Amino acid sequence: MAGLDDHVGELTVGVDVGGTKIQSVALRSEAIAGRHRLETPQSGAGDVAAAIVEAATKAVAEAGAGTADVRAVGIGVPGAIDTEAGTVSSSPNLPGFQDPEPVPLAELVSSALGEVPVRLDNDVRVGILGEWKRGAGRGYRHLMGVWVGTGVGGGLVLDGKIYQGRGAAGEIGHTIVKPGGRICSDGRFGHLEAYAGRAQMEAEARRRVKRGHRTDLFDIMRKKGRTRLSSGVWATALEKKDKMARDLVDDAVEALATALSSSQNLLAVEAIVVGGGLGDRLGAHFVERIEEGMKPLLFVPDAAPKMLTTEFGDLSGAVGAAVLTGG
Amino acid sequence: MAGLDDHVGELTVGVDVGGTKIQSVALRSEAIAGRHRLETPQSGAGDVAAAIVEAATKAVAEAGAGTADVRAVGIGVPGAIDTEAGTVSSSPNLPGFQDPEPVPLAELVSSALGEVPVRLDNDVRVGILGEWKRGAGRGYRHLMGVWVGTGVGGGLVLDGKIYQGRGAAGEIGHTIVKPGGRICSDGRFGHLEAYAGRAQMEAEARRRVKRGHRTDLFDIMRKKGRTRLSSGVWATALEKKDKMARDLVDDAVEALATALSSSQNLLAVEAIVVGGGLGDRLGAHFVERIEEGMKPLLFVPDAAPKMLTTEFGDLSGAVGAAVLTGG
Repeated sequence: MAGLDDHVGELTVGVDVGGTKIQSVALRSEAIAGRHRLETPQSGAGDVAAAIVEAATKAVAEAGAGTADVRAVGIGVPGAIDTEAGTVSSSPNLPGFQDPEPVPLAELVSSALGEVPVRLDNDVRVGILGEWKRGAGRGYRHLMGVWVGTGVGGGLVLDGKIYQGRGAAGEIGHTIVKPGGRICSDGRFGHLEAYAGRAQMEAEARRRVKRGHRTDLFDIMRKKGRTRLSSGVWATALEKKDKMARDLVDDAVEALATALSSSQNLLAVEAIVVGGGLGDRLGAHFVERIEEGMKPLLFVPDAAPKMLTTEFGDLSGAVGAAVLTGG
Repeated sequence: MAGLDDHVGELTVGVDVGGTKIQSVALRSEAIAGRHRLETPQSGAGDVAAAIVEAATKAVAEAGAGTADVRAVGIGVPGAIDTEAGTVSSSPNLPGFQDPEPVPLAELVSSALGEVPVRLDNDVRVGILGEWKRGAGRGYRHLMGVWVGTGVGGGLVLDGKIYQGRGAAGEIGHTIVKPGGRICSDGRFGHLEAYAGRAQMEAEARRRVKRGHRTDLFDIMRKKGRTRLSSGVWATALEKKDKMARDLVDDAVEALATALSSSQNLLAVEAIVVGGGLGDRLGAHFVERIEEGMKPLLFVPDAAPKMLTTEFGDLSGAVGAAVLTGG
């Protein structure tokens, strides 16, 4: 793969790969000049790579340019990433990325785009990078990000740098908020993600329906032509005052307030930005409710962190992926 | 107060002020040349300052020197410290330090010791500093310390530096391990400190006795001539297989395993050092039990942190306080 300096195109491209959608942006002088969104193929790593290429190409076309004008591509992927090798070691929420062999995603995308340089990083980390460098988190020296989507991820800016620890720092979704509580995606119990991650919220809703509880969540899902409880389904059910949806979102708010308070007591950050599919869709009201829930739990209430919604919404990850390349 | 460079004495002194005892060391060329220990006066800030001066003077005498040979004094104090001003804003576990006016402890001690330079910092932070710079934590770039004593404190070394956040980082004792659970020293519920801090463990033991439960804890306390359940009382009760003591220490281990696992999932440190009065007294077996409890709770079990006991034991804080001065 060529080095970053060998390509002098005017555009940088960022691609955010989620469990349900792939979002791209093309940046020209730090401004969004084009964007594209696709459903994430559920059919394997090769198809995901092809979809990334398509999303990148279409964003570039919308910016009135061609792939020859692309200086570099950044990609955010959920799961464990080897940023040096440009490979995805495993990605629990992405079909086809659980193989024992790491997927050489950077190489696959680069070769399809004329050997353009490609940088990979974790999707949540790039989302927080985007908001920190260009969005709601600009200027903070100590910033925590919590990304509420299919799962719950997190990232940390400490002392003015992305903090990674020995490698997988930021996994706030696996904070234990209720020992022995609801089962989580990793088979352990009582994690934040078990209460606030969309996949586990849906699993719990299905369990409750089986036990005879009523909800309109799945009717709304079908009417929207969905097969999963998307963030939009949850938002609509809340608007319709569906009791189960409200109970489960209440649990999510409480779990987030608990985990974020414990994390704040440990890290004393200046601000917390709440993003991710569900976080963005439920927006300011959701974040205010979390903030309210944190108040009685903070060790130093006078130094409560500023609670922020994202500035770029569902483009945070794509913008941050472009920032990865210096774009 | 004079600057550090104005004093050229060969000794540095570190004093660790705890809720029950004051421990000093005098260091000569980084080695412990003298030490002294006193009970902490429960009669106010002036008496505590005088006891600090006495502990410092006696350690220096044991090193075969006089106060004129002291280059600088570092002091670790539990509570909120203004390190610049050398004042203690508040210290919940130290009688006489809850006044609205900050206590100018550095000045009080300095003037009693011939205007020697005095540095203050939080007791737990200096303990971790001592273990990181000179003890069990040497060489780690990402290190968490948890100090299990009257309360439960913590401190963080991240990316090779003491991390302070916006000011009060490291308060792992106020991690919520059981929402709505046992009441904590700060009046909130379910914090780690409510289960693993000696003061709250004693309060719970007293509640259980009132409810008719049996224990030898208070007999052992009286036989040892104590008025509180010291770490030694707990250790003896465990040796005698006292059921209440075992139950309460089991709860402490579980709470520590929960809080440390959540913190590890967030911070991905290389090692965790467990110190403090109770941590040191219960020692390696206690730390092994916490490690065992963490195994099923870690998000990345393959990257489990190395679990360490302190190297300096109950001298960690005093050594770290001396390190504060560069000693």
